[in-house]
Amino acid sequence: MIHFNCDYLEGAHSAVLERLVRTNMEQTIGYGCDPYCETARAKIRAACGVPDADVHFLVGGTQTNTTVIASILRPYQGVLAAVSGHVNCHETGAIESTGHKVITLPTKNGKITARQVAEYVEWHKNDESFEHIVYPGMVYISYPTEAGTLYTKSELTALYNTCLAYGLPLFIDGARLGYGLMADGADLTLPELAQLCDVFYIGGTKVGALFGEAVVITNPALKKDFRPLQKQRGAMLAKGRLLGLQFDALFTDDLYFRIARHADEMAYQIREIFVSNGYPLLFDSPTNQQYPIIPDEELAILGQNFGYEYWERVDETHSGVRFCASWATTQEQVDALREAVRALKE
Amino acid sequence: MIHFNCDYLEGAHSAVLERLVRTNMEQTIGYGCDPYCETARAKIRAACGVPDADVHFLVGGTQTNTTVIASILRPYQGVLAAVSGHVNCHETGAIESTGHKVITLPTKNGKITARQVAEYVEWHKNDESFEHIVYPGMVYISYPTEAGTLYTKSELTALYNTCLAYGLPLFIDGARLGYGLMADGADLTLPELAQLCDVFYIGGTKVGALFGEAVVITNPALKKDFRPLQKQRGAMLAKGRLLGLQFDALFTDDLYFRIARHADEMAYQIREIFVSNGYPLLFDSPTNQQYPIIPDEELAILGQNFGYEYWERVDETHSGVRFCASWATTQEQVDALREAVRALKE
Amino acid sequence: MIHFNCDYLEGAHSAVLERLVRTNMEQTIGYGCDPYCETARAKIRAACGVPDADVHFLVGGTQTNTTVIASILRPYQGVLAAVSGHVNCHETGAIESTGHKVITLPTKNGKITARQVAEYVEWHKNDESFEHIVYPGMVYISYPTEAGTLYTKSELTALYNTCLAYGLPLFIDGARLGYGLMADGADLTLPELAQLCDVFYIGGTKVGALFGEAVVITNPALKKDFRPLQKQRGAMLAKGRLLGLQFDALFTDDLYFRIARHADEMAYQIREIFVSNGYPLLFDSPTNQQYPIIPDEELAILGQNFGYEYWERVDETHSGVRFCASWATTQEQVDALREAVRALKE
Amino acid sequence: MIHFNCDYLEGAHSAVLERLVRTNMEQTIGYGCDPYCETARAKIRAACGVPDADVHFLVGGTQTNTTVIASILRPYQGVLAAVSGHVNCHETGAIESTGHKVITLPTKNGKITARQVAEYVEWHKNDESFEHIVYPGMVYISYPTEAGTLYTKSELTALYNTCLAYGLPLFIDGARLGYGLMADGADLTLPELAQLCDVFYIGGTKVGALFGEAVVITNPALKKDFRPLQKQRGAMLAKGRLLGLQFDALFTDDLYFRIARHADEMAYQIREIFVSNGYPLLFDSPTNQQYPIIPDEELAILGQNFGYEYWERVDETHSGVRFCASWATTQEQVDALREAVRALKE
Repeated sequence: MIHFNCDYLEGAHSAVLERLVRTNMEQTIGYGCDPYCETARAKIRAACGVPDADVHFLVGGTQTNTTVIASILRPYQGVLAAVSGHVNCHETGAIESTGHKVITLPTKNGKITARQVAEYVEWHKNDESFEHIVYPGMVYISYPTEAGTLYTKSELTALYNTCLAYGLPLFIDGARLGYGLMADGADLTLPELAQLCDVFYIGGTKVGALFGEAVVITNPALKKDFRPLQKQRGAMLAKGRLLGLQFDALFTDDLYFRIARHADEMAYQIREIFVSNGYPLLFDSPTNQQYPIIPDEELAILGQNFGYEYWERVDETHSGVRFCASWATTQEQVDALREAVRALKE
Repeated sequence: MIHFNCDYLEGAHSAVLERLVRTNMEQTIGYGCDPYCETARAKIRAACGVPDADVHFLVGGTQTNTTVIASILRPYQGVLAAVSGHVNCHETGAIESTGHKVITLPTKNGKITARQVAEYVEWHKNDESFEHIVYPGMVYISYPTEAGTLYTKSELTALYNTCLAYGLPLFIDGARLGYGLMADGADLTLPELAQLCDVFYIGGTKVGALFGEAVVITNPALKKDFRPLQKQRGAMLAKGRLLGLQFDALFTDDLYFRIARHADEMAYQIREIFVSNGYPLLFDSPTNQQYPIIPDEELAILGQNFGYEYWERVDETHSGVRFCASWATTQEQVDALREAVRALKE
Repeated sequence: MIHFNCDYLEGAHSAVLERLVRTNMEQTIGYGCDPYCETARAKIRAACGVPDADVHFLVGGTQTNTTVIASILRPYQGVLAAVSGHVNCHETGAIESTGHKVITLPTKNGKITARQVAEYVEWHKNDESFEHIVYPGMVYISYPTEAGTLYTKSELTALYNTCLAYGLPLFIDGARLGYGLMADGADLTLPELAQLCDVFYIGGTKVGALFGEAVVITNPALKKDFRPLQKQRGAMLAKGRLLGLQFDALFTDDLYFRIARHADEMAYQIREIFVSNGYPLLFDSPTNQQYPIIPDEELAILGQNFGYEYWERVDETHSGVRFCASWATTQEQVDALREAVRALKE
Repeated sequence: MIHFNCDYLEGAHSAVLERLVRTNMEQTIGYGCDPYCETARAKIRAACGVPDADVHFLVGGTQTNTTVIASILRPYQGVLAAVSGHVNCHETGAIESTGHKVITLPTKNGKITARQVAEYVEWHKNDESFEHIVYPGMVYISYPTEAGTLYTKSELTALYNTCLAYGLPLFIDGARLGYGLMADGADLTLPELAQLCDVFYIGGTKVGALFGEAVVITNPALKKDFRPLQKQRGAMLAKGRLLGLQFDALFTDDLYFRIARHADEMAYQIREIFVSNGYPLLFDSPTNQQYPIIPDEELAILGQNFGYEYWERVDETHSGVRFCASWATTQEQVDALREAVRALKE
């Protein structure tokens, strides 16, 4: 059985794991105040080109999204997000559990536009009953999106300018940030992305770490007292150095970017396997998640040897599914899939 | 200026006010434990035909919706509601402020169907990631809806049976309950409605009271400890008798129903004024809220002498607006509107 | 039976009620935007000597405390309060329900001191684990306190200066404000009190109104977006004018102060009744609440004809209880109590 | 520099780490549904002697306490705890952030008694205003306590019987459970402890794991839907097997108990070092945390080479501090401390 279900099937990249093993019996103080967290922060700041950014390490995506969003909003405010956004769909109401509505905007490809944000804010402002309607307080996007798609530099610039114009902090969920930045056709560098939002996070769990997400706060107005919020939400790891060590390793010699590129390249092969065999795609994703539409009969056969994630029913006999590559995907795994798909066509 | 903006423009029906004045200097204990609350509860139980229902008095609709919903849901659950539902649109995120998502179902006329509920629950149950998705924990509907429409007995029966089948308590927001029950074509009595849900409230604020909503809990499983929740939410009036007195008056000699019928009849005249003059309606409402679509130019003229609520833009030159009748609407007010609309056509 | 249990046993002062009756059938827009709320706001601003204060009307004390406190604190902050404070003891955890800890300071007479606040903040700041401890975010006091006691001008000035020094907004719960300001020995005027805090409220429920509390925000930094918070918390009355009308009446011709003074004078007689008959007092209260310590046997006799509130057990045979006077207390009621206590001694 | 500050200074026990390394590139599904979590659960159930217990793995203590407590309480309820309890003192208000008050009971040694619980519940029930006071909804204790002390079997039995009598679930925070169970004089086995509460957790972070806590729910009434709550609170690790692997290793060949006993023995040496040199102790702790009272001057000298945690000021020239041993503490480290303390006395 070979699993392409998601990008968190294996442990950590060997260089990351090696760091944990080598330092295992060292004594360091807790809660992210150790030297490894400091060097990791320095490397991340350098990679982002934001020397004065605040960098905090958390364990997982849901706790990161919740902590960041709860740190920004006032009680009567909500977060604008694509209806397909992770915070809206797959966090069991974590955002709402902090008291805030996720205000959803429609989308077909996982992205929202500057215009949608502007129209929503204008509509709210001009409604006679605006005081009775949740106020938009910030904007959440993911890069790449849940559909594997990417904002262009021009789209993100427009969105951020709109956010600035309306005083709405822009937060980018980068659970798969590396896979986005290294994708074919991606026209954003990490320093550019860092300039086009107020806070974002660099996903480690899905890109080479055992676990861990690095929150980068570039807007000084959002920096105050993030740490007590982190603690309150159970999102401050006692042995914080485990996070520092991992991000230090990932941001040494461009490891993060190299392994992300590897995953994208594996994904392009997966895409090609399906497309060249005539399968349409649910989304046009240039990143590590690929979404072929497959007849249910063939899916049943594939499923005997390959793991995938069921995405949505397309029609009575076809399903859209997700195949993920990751930093850990091997050429052998992809080749096996190629053979299997080819066999379906014989 | 004559206002048809909403149904809470005036104070209270004279019989209600008279009760408050007459008893003003009596001493009663607080928080709803006085004799007037008791008699009001008895009359409401009798009117509902549910001798063992729990009846609680709150001040306003938002606090009632929030308190009831927060009393039912566990933290990982949300409330299913029409996307147009008051709890979703016009309570500044009150439900989310208690930690719960409003799970929205699409609607054109303000109503949701048994099938929509069943499909949502089935979809949730069968999704591989169901643990990552807010659980449906109850269903909220309004009667009449925010579009002035009504569930038929058959529709409500189907919805309630679905709720029972899935273990989802059904809560009916009756902010305008009287206007619904007394509408032409309404095929539900109060006792029937009380049998077809787990908890509902009888709106007083919009139907003859200065303020006040009477929550009726018929499902024994939902009765426990409603009062401390009420207190916690700031929804337990110190001089609780003010609520008891008002509902006692409203449920004496069918006053509640008589004044609601009066409002509906005024509304039918309003509807006829617009329809007979060729204005289409946004919703086909048999209750006290009427929604004509009016050319913006004519609306500007009408607006000089009549208050209405802006509902939504229909096209570049037409708007959908709301005209409300209430227990307090007079024939003279409606006649003045008739003259004004007629004049637009000359 | 004559009740001295509390100060919300009757309806409203006749002048207040008369205003409601007289204006009953007028049409006004809702949610506190009507002309009566405006004139009431103007009168309150004038009485406070703060021409640019924001004034908001809410229905009851718990919802007022909750809304004000939730409007000020960030999620990781708590409110410093006397352990006997209403927000800590008697609101069923309303503050905690908004996510905030009530950080309690010990007290014997209901008051807290500038020094206690300073020591707490310094302790927190200097603790190695300060990020793991709820941050003090504001200070709550009541005037008069739950023990009927009053801060002197000098005490309040010291407390406020400490709050200013540490950047902690000071909120005064004035549920019984009138009874405090008009007490013998009170050395604070309303304008002085308004200068010595950031936000406070003027209690109406217990001082002549049917219901209602007027929040006065003097610190500009706390003014933003109070109204959507009010709405979210179910604390924005639909027929807002009911609150405006009542406060307009109370702040016309010093009615609020005159009826408060009357209550205090009745309370002094009650105090004298007990003291002159040899009963010690639990607290030395100069306001409308009096706390005699009474042998249980005598209490049982008194209780046959007089209502009081049980406060606490003093020893095996004595109880501390509360007798309240209010704007509605009559000389006849007090005389009856005098007779009854005297009779106990025969 | 040798650190005795806390018990989470190092990484993981070698056997634990070895398991992570060896399985690193295996593919497993996420969120705790992998085979390693299953075997770990089986071993924990066996060790507890509760074959049908539910076992869930979380990352850290604060998120565990918050998730468990939020899963049990209804909104108007609070959790009874010692005033020194971790949930009250050192979680930045995490419990309150879920809407619940921590109801504190006084303590000198970190423990609370059956009698205290009973008295609180009786007081609440019998208070006239009980509906205005947060309801006790469960009891939280820690074993060992924050003072290093232990409940005896007789004390815990009495406490649990009281909890049963009042319908209050009892939750034991076992962040340092191993150090408690293996202490000299401890008269509770793991299976006995599991029978004397409704839910508890086995701390891994402080006892040999990189991170991780195993929640054991023995009361069937508390089992329902813990997983969505975990997800909502950001407490469901994507690569859940990391937790399963660690607990599997810890519960193989009694590793958890053996390393805990080692720590206790190191702690007894630390205790003896101080006691034999005439230092009094702040608490009489039989577990891995020791609390000597040391003159400030000597503390300054010790602090040059040894890390400790400042606990509290005892008087103007003495401080109570904490020295922790852990699974990782070596005889060499303890010997160095012995020399240093001896040197102070020369």
